[in-house]
Amino acid sequence: MTKHELAKNIFEKGSYLCVGLDTDINKLPAHILKESSDPVFSFNKAIIDSTKDICVAYKINTAFYESMGIKGWESLLRTAAYIPSTHFKIADAKRGDIGNTSHQYAKAFFETYHFDAVTVAPYMGKDSVEPFLQYPGKWIILLALTSNEGSHDFQLQQFSDNEFLYEKVIRQSQTWGNDGNLMYVIGATRTEQISHIREIVPEHFFLVPGVGFQGGNLREISKHGLNKHGGLLVNVSRSILYASNLENFAEEARTIALQYQIEMKEYLDEIPETD
Amino acid sequence: MTKHELAKNIFEKGSYLCVGLDTDINKLPAHILKESSDPVFSFNKAIIDSTKDICVAYKINTAFYESMGIKGWESLLRTAAYIPSTHFKIADAKRGDIGNTSHQYAKAFFETYHFDAVTVAPYMGKDSVEPFLQYPGKWIILLALTSNEGSHDFQLQQFSDNEFLYEKVIRQSQTWGNDGNLMYVIGATRTEQISHIREIVPEHFFLVPGVGFQGGNLREISKHGLNKHGGLLVNVSRSILYASNLENFAEEARTIALQYQIEMKEYLDEIPETD
Repeated sequence: MTKHELAKNIFEKGSYLCVGLDTDINKLPAHILKESSDPVFSFNKAIIDSTKDICVAYKINTAFYESMGIKGWESLLRTAAYIPSTHFKIADAKRGDIGNTSHQYAKAFFETYHFDAVTVAPYMGKDSVEPFLQYPGKWIILLALTSNEGSHDFQLQQFSDNEFLYEKVIRQSQTWGNDGNLMYVIGATRTEQISHIREIVPEHFFLVPGVGFQGGNLREISKHGLNKHGGLLVNVSRSILYASNLENFAEEARTIALQYQIEMKEYLDEIPETD
Repeated sequence: MTKHELAKNIFEKGSYLCVGLDTDINKLPAHILKESSDPVFSFNKAIIDSTKDICVAYKINTAFYESMGIKGWESLLRTAAYIPSTHFKIADAKRGDIGNTSHQYAKAFFETYHFDAVTVAPYMGKDSVEPFLQYPGKWIILLALTSNEGSHDFQLQQFSDNEFLYEKVIRQSQTWGNDGNLMYVIGATRTEQISHIREIVPEHFFLVPGVGFQGGNLREISKHGLNKHGGLLVNVSRSILYASNLENFAEEARTIALQYQIEMKEYLDEIPETD
């Protein structure tokens, strides 16, 4: 999917919502577990059906599927295939290795599983990232500044040239890719840094995970992060997926997703549409 | 596997060789591709049979299996199950995510696939690493200093307190784990840094990938890296796996592996055995 197509979807739908399919079999409604031979896929299918008109992206957190072995990979494949091609399909896999191996990961996620994007860890530098950038229409989403406590250990440490590690990652990586094949993961609790990062990379998309149930941060994230292409994909996982564990779970998921989308439309209406 | 058991294996076998199963289906001997319904596993099985008495560890590079989809994961599972329990079994997966997700990865590699160790990327800090450290007898192997060109982008950048990023990773991570559950990936071409790192962490094991066909570095790596527990796992992949692509590939693989092992025994004989 091109940047232009993604931006178009965002403005047409009034939404930059990404629904995170961090599907944990231990949290599924009892009736799904009882009735389905692939409960994880059945659950995801219902969530996709009930949210696809109000979100623009789905993010599959591969860890939740890998932990279930072959069965988990089957659920992942079925889910990936079920996500409509109109939606931006993210493998949240945080891969990254030497060139030869990264090439295999790129092949896995782009050719074998047909994702639009994969999250990549920057620790090993340029040649670990570049193999993912060879695929036209495909994206990498590079870890930059995450919102977990451990982000202070390295990302928020300052180099002798005064740059923080996350700033160096953003600055260096701009020589590897561009705003048409490279996005950044920016944690939702870092609203104070989002406007700073937006200054460094005015044109790039940010994937913002970690928006909570209350959505308290969405206004701040949007205020500092939106640009004329939209420029944001805000991921919400658990508060949508597990809105209810009764038979009506998909409707309840939609209700929560709709709350986010309505708020997003408001913020989008305040900026001019991209051409 | 405990550190004591690993050290015991190393001195008994006179070997700290880890055979890297970066098995690329495009490089397999023609007869294997023709005869086997799971050629990757058949190839790995033959390699394991022909090397197990002269190596102490096997490292499965998950990317090569993931790129083949479900079939690849089936080959990976069969291979992991075939590696004898006497051998240290490494998933070279370079995972790392927020706590909740890292917990799923730990579950995948330790509970579902029964590996002894998994390689982990440190970018997201402490809470991305700790879930892997909760399993008694299991290990994480943290990326510290790799040998690829991209290692200069971040790992070899210096912080305002004069520490390089890789040094900070090693120093910080020592408060998360210990020499009984934490190893470090140190690239083989970094012989100049190995003795420096050995000073920082005298007791920890290093996984050293990237030793080439000529083995020119093995002497230097061993000189600077060995300690009284052995302290090294030197990984060799392609020069063993693809020593020949004829019917006798497994014998040829053994011949190469044996060259490494004989040299390793020499270096081990120069240090006192651990108790």
